[in-house]
Parts: sequence; structure tokens; C-alpha cells
Amino acid sequence: MKMDFDTLAAIGATTAGGVNRPAFSDAHFEAGNWFRKRAGRIGSDIRISTDAAGNQMATLFCSLEGTPEILIGSHLDSVPDGGRFDGALGVVAALEVLETVRESGVKLSHPLTAVNFMDEEGAYIGLMGSRALAGILPKGELDHITAHSDAFNRGLRKAGLECDSIFYAQSEPGSIAGYLELHIEQGLRLKNAGAQIGVVTGIVGIRCFRITFKGRADHAGTTPMDARQDAGLGASSFSLAARNLIMREFPASVATVGNMMYLPGASNVIPKSVSVSLEFRADSMEALDAMESALTSIAREHAARFDLSVTLEALERVSPVPTDETIKQMIAQSAQALALASIRMPSGAGHDAQAMAAVCPVGMIFVPSEQGASHCGREHTRWEDCANGANVLLHSVLGLTAESYLITKNQGS
Amino acid sequence: MKMDFDTLAAIGATTAGGVNRPAFSDAHFEAGNWFRKRAGRIGSDIRISTDAAGNQMATLFCSLEGTPEILIGSHLDSVPDGGRFDGALGVVAALEVLETVRESGVKLSHPLTAVNFMDEEGAYIGLMGSRALAGILPKGELDHITAHSDAFNRGLRKAGLECDSIFYAQSEPGSIAGYLELHIEQGLRLKNAGAQIGVVTGIVGIRCFRITFKGRADHAGTTPMDARQDAGLGASSFSLAARNLIMREFPASVATVGNMMYLPGASNVIPKSVSVSLEFRADSMEALDAMESALTSIAREHAARFDLSVTLEALERVSPVPTDETIKQMIAQSAQALALASIRMPSGAGHDAQAMAAVCPVGMIFVPSEQGASHCGREHTRWEDCANGANVLLHSVLGLTAESYLITKNQGS
Repeated sequence: MKMDFDTLAAIGATTAGGVNRPAFSDAHFEAGNWFRKRAGRIGSDIRISTDAAGNQMATLFCSLEGTPEILIGSHLDSVPDGGRFDGALGVVAALEVLETVRESGVKLSHPLTAVNFMDEEGAYIGLMGSRALAGILPKGELDHITAHSDAFNRGLRKAGLECDSIFYAQSEPGSIAGYLELHIEQGLRLKNAGAQIGVVTGIVGIRCFRITFKGRADHAGTTPMDARQDAGLGASSFSLAARNLIMREFPASVATVGNMMYLPGASNVIPKSVSVSLEFRADSMEALDAMESALTSIAREHAARFDLSVTLEALERVSPVPTDETIKQMIAQSAQALALASIRMPSGAGHDAQAMAAVCPVGMIFVPSEQGASHCGREHTRWEDCANGANVLLHSVLGLTAESYLITKNQGS
Repeated sequence: MKMDFDTLAAIGATTAGGVNRPAFSDAHFEAGNWFRKRAGRIGSDIRISTDAAGNQMATLFCSLEGTPEILIGSHLDSVPDGGRFDGALGVVAALEVLETVRESGVKLSHPLTAVNFMDEEGAYIGLMGSRALAGILPKGELDHITAHSDAFNRGLRKAGLECDSIFYAQSEPGSIAGYLELHIEQGLRLKNAGAQIGVVTGIVGIRCFRITFKGRADHAGTTPMDARQDAGLGASSFSLAARNLIMREFPASVATVGNMMYLPGASNVIPKSVSVSLEFRADSMEALDAMESALTSIAREHAARFDLSVTLEALERVSPVPTDETIKQMIAQSAQALALASIRMPSGAGHDAQAMAAVCPVGMIFVPSEQGASHCGREHTRWEDCANGANVLLHSVLGLTAESYLITKNQGS
């Protein structure tokens, strides 16, 4: 598995020590080729396929006919100049588990599929592959990017996909028994707790807003300080106040201003408009609603303070997603059997598992991130921790298929 | 003159009511064509020329041989989506004065030249034309833009210019007797004082810095608020503190953050670097030095507050420039003779006159700006005020050439 991981990490490798593999980039296509080759090596009885959304699957069938399949995996795309572990570890481990299960000759109660989801990071559409498979990708979102991005349309064509048929990727109701994903933590909770395995209790919800402060573009040399309507001051003041609010009133949650766009953006013109890109995350709808309400009133307050107007546009609202209780128990039990210390923790990042939760029980296994670094070249997880995670994934899959828990649950629901 | 002004304002007209004529844009070339046609209409004895920096000149010679010339004018380029009056009024008035002087048959003691300077607003190099003529354009500044901007090189070629020969525009020592510029105030001092004419006492110095706050790019969902090194917070905090400092300790001066560049600028990544574009202006070197020192220490203080590093790069330092005392008196006297109320005031904006001051005595005439609006479509000066300014320019030119003050001064220096 280490050699597989290293081969993959060389595809799109950056000088910073990470990988640059946004969806539809050359490196991303090459990673897809790697997936097919690696899956093909497992055995000729593995069915390798790509669905209408570009998700790659490698399936080991079981002797019971018509039983729903268990999916394990993650994604091979990265953010621009991202890290080697985010997504890749989950796919490499899924293929390793598939190979181990096949070689062991264990009698499966479900078909087992290793999956590489398309565009998890959202070079074009975040969670595109998993949302298409789960049937929750809004047509409007696809139409918008199709209409505005030539690069997306070119990427689809190169991948042999068509935007009109992406929705055909939607899975048959009841056809998926469960989804398990191994992923790096991308934070420091496991390190700080001295634990090797994180049993993910749920994935935080995310809300993204574009907040635009509007003032007046006047001459930077001739307009006295007290006669200005400087949109930049409202944006800066809001940015600081938002941070203080979250730290004071929502200590378990996070909010980030990831970008500001100044217009006209010239050194000698007072900014007439500044658009702030605000994102915040929490593990419950109640917390998200309370944060949205507080942040909205802070935006209005700081606009008024500098004689500005302000508009708020909700760009994205992702609901928090709980993981399945039985899968969580199985993961914790597997860790214990392997003598690994585990803790329960929420995921602060979004993952394909949250889309899959719309159609099946899901679970996630976290392994520690050195320094908590993520989405950059410094992203690192010790190999021992990677192997531990893959082992827990293997044991959990075997445990779930042995108990036939998932069949029952899925047929009963 | 009103018809000329309106014809010119239609070139590059914006829906906001202004003009969009950055240097080397199609509209800017068209404005240059207009200059040649308008100057040609004055008479066949007017010499029309373009120098090696792209400055356009229309000259009326005098009978005295070898006397230095008087320049009057401004510029026809605008900031992106700028106003109709900034620069254009000074050029239109200069041509009108040239025509009036020629038609009046007054015997000039100096050649009189109406000038349209190249790229005053700095689409590529601020005050390029006037600094080239004055021989104070640094080679490094030209080399930098030549190396980095294809658009600049294309513009030069289209204008029939060559970057290597721009320095040939430098005037012969002693060849320019003086420079007078009529310009809109771009502020509210004249309106507030109820005056029709501003006698400009000097032009403020300007310093531009790029201040880059550097932190760490971490995942916006998984990095707790108190474990972040968010470059955006340092930039925002500095921006607000800089404003408070200037208002408190330098009430006669101004400072502006006109832009911020967030890297990587994604909604789900904590900004690792934010570059702040800071500009400040004052009418004395002492004030500029004190402001620079105070703003620098504020930048370091706010970087430290958020666990960031900070680098400061001086992009531009323009010294404050006093205007000529005798020209000031002549402007004030002309206003009085025309029964116009005048006040003495500094110019908060940079102008071609500040470059010309390196080679000759300079003077500037301001006329009121409605609402103080500038560099935007709302920029407006009542036509009566424009005409007053042109009349004061005419009387000042006649007064100076009659007294032969400038010849004496220039030859004596």
C-alpha cells in the first residue's frame, strides 16, 4: 500500500511536497489511469467501471444475488497545490481492502466497491460525483457551471462525459448498503488527544455568503478622511468583529473570511465596493442558524458604522450530516480489537460521505494529521497512522458484512 | 470651448456619465486624434507635434528668437471609468487659450504651447509623459513595465513609440519658461469656502507601499479559531488602525487602503498572505516621514497581534512640490481682475505640474468640483466654473508673457 501511495503522490507532485490535481487537470486524468491499473491488478474478477458522473468504481461481487453493495473510498482530485493525503489515502486504502478481502477468500454478504469520486474539492462543483450518485446534485448548479465555464465543458468532453447525462449516475434506490471513508483529520484533535483513530460522529454543515459593502469611489488624495464612504473599512471591521463573535459565542465552531475583492482596486481611489467571502461551519442546524443571524446583524452594524450599504448573498448551504450509529460502533470496536486508541469527533471538513448519507448509512474513520496541516504541501500523516486507518477500515467492512447489519437496515428502511 | 469639451467627453463615454480612457486604450488614441484636429483648426502657423514619450504639443511661435516656451495643458487619459473633467478640462482650455491669443494678435514674448501629457493617471506609469519631458523618469521604472506588461509594449508600438527612445523626450535645459495647468479641484474646499478659483500653493507628496501580511494556509473547517495564522485579520486590523492614526495625529493628511489581495483567496482556505495597497499624502516631507514611521510601526504591531510576519515595500515616493510664488500672484491677480473669489490651497492630488516643477516654475488653477466627486462618472464642474478657470488661465498667461517675468527668471536660474 505504501508503494501505491507513493506512486500516486508522484502524479501532479508539487515542489512544496504536495500534489496539484484539480478535477479535469492532466494530473487528475493521470490519477484516474492509475486507479484503473491498480484495480486491474487485483484480479480479473474485479469489475472496473466509470459512471456518468466520472466516478470510478472497482467492484468485487458476492455470491448472494441482488444484495446491495458496500462502497468504500474517497477522491483523487485535490485543491490547487494541495496535499498528498486528502482523498488519496482513502482511495488507496479502499483498493487495498478490496484486494485483501478478495485474497482472503472471505464470503461477502454484499458486493464490495472501491470508489474514486469526481471533483470532491469543487474545482468546478464540490462533491459533484458523490452528489450525482446520491441523486442530490441540483440541476441548476450544473447548468450554471456548464454555461459559465469552458474549462468544465472541455474537461467533461475529455473524460468522455456529457453534462446532460451526469444525472444518470444516480444510484437505484436501495442499491447501496453503506459507505465508509478513511480520511486524514485535517486538524489537531487526534494529536492533542493522543488518539490514533477518530470515529467521526458527523460532518459539519457549511454556509457560504458573499457580503458586499458598498460606499463611494472618491479620489484618495482630495477627499478628507471624515468625508469618505470607504467600503474597505466596513469589510475590514466586519471581518474582525465576525472572528471575535465566533470565538466568544460559538467556541466549537469556525468562521473564515477567505477572500476580499476591492473595486476598483486602485491605490489612488477610495474603494467603492468590497465583496467579502464568508464561510462558517457548525455541527447542528441550530448553531448554523444562530451564527447566520448573528453574523448578518454584525455585517449591517459595521456597514452602518462607516456609512455604507451592505448586501448578503447565500452562495451555499450544506446541512450537517450525522453518521450511522452502528457503523460508528463497528469502527470503535475494530480500533479496540487492533489496540488503537480512538475518540469520537465531528468532521470540520466536508466529505463525499455527507452526500452519500442521503442514500445509505455512512461512517468515517479519521487518522491524525501532523501539525494539523491540510490543503497544502505540508499536509502529512505518518505512514503508521495511514496503515492503522486502513486496518480499521478493513475490520469494519468485514464486521459489517459478517453481521449482515447493513442488509437488514437497508431493506428495512 | 463647450462644444470642444462635449465632443471630447463623448470619446470613451461611460453609462455612468464619465469616460473610460486609460492610456493606450482605443478611446485614448481617439482623444489624441481629436487633439490634432482641434489644434489644426487654430491655424496653419500652429506646429503640431508628438514627442518621444507620446506627449502631444501644439505651439504658437513668437517673434523673439530663442526664448524659452510657456507650456499650458494637462492630460486626456483617464482612470478606468473616470470622469469627464479630470485632465480634459485643462487640455481643452489650453487649446482655447492658444486660439484666443493667436486671434488677438497679442505680441508674445515666449512661444506658447498647449500640451496633452501621456499617461498621467498611470495606467502603466503615472506622470510618464511629464516626467519624461522633465527628465526625471527613472529608467528602472520603464524597464520594469516593459518587462512585465505586454499591453504596455503593444500600446507603445501602436502609438509609434519605442521604449528605448522615450528618454529622448527630455527637454533642453532652459528651454521651458514655465508651466501652467488648469484642473478641477477634486475635493470640496472651494465649494465650502464659496470661492470660484483655487490658487494652488503646492502639490502634496505621495508615498505608496505594498504591505504584505503572511500567515499560514490552513483548512477553514478543521483549524480552530485560536490556532490560526490568518493573514486577513492582520491586514484588516492594520487598515482600521491606519485610518484612526491619520485622523487622530495627521488631520490635514490622508491615507487610503485601495486594495487587498488575498492568497489563495478561496472560501475554504485560511488566507496565507494578504497584500495591502497603502497610499498616503501630505504637503511636507516632515509630515510624510512622520506618517511613514507611524504607519510602519502600526503594520508591525498588528502583524504581531495575529502571529503573522509582515514585509513593507515602498513602491513610489513622490516629493511634495511647491508652486512658483510669482505665478501664484499672477493667478490671484487675474482672478481678482475678473471679479472671481479665490483662495490659496494645496492640491491633494498629483498632477503633471509636479513633474514639470523639476525644470521650470509651475502654477496651477483649480475650479470647484460639485460634491467633490472625482475619478468617477459623478465627477462634475459647472460650465460657468470651467469658463472662469479658462479665463484666469488666459489672463495669467498674458500677464506672465507681458511682464517677461519668466524669461528673466529662467535665464537667471
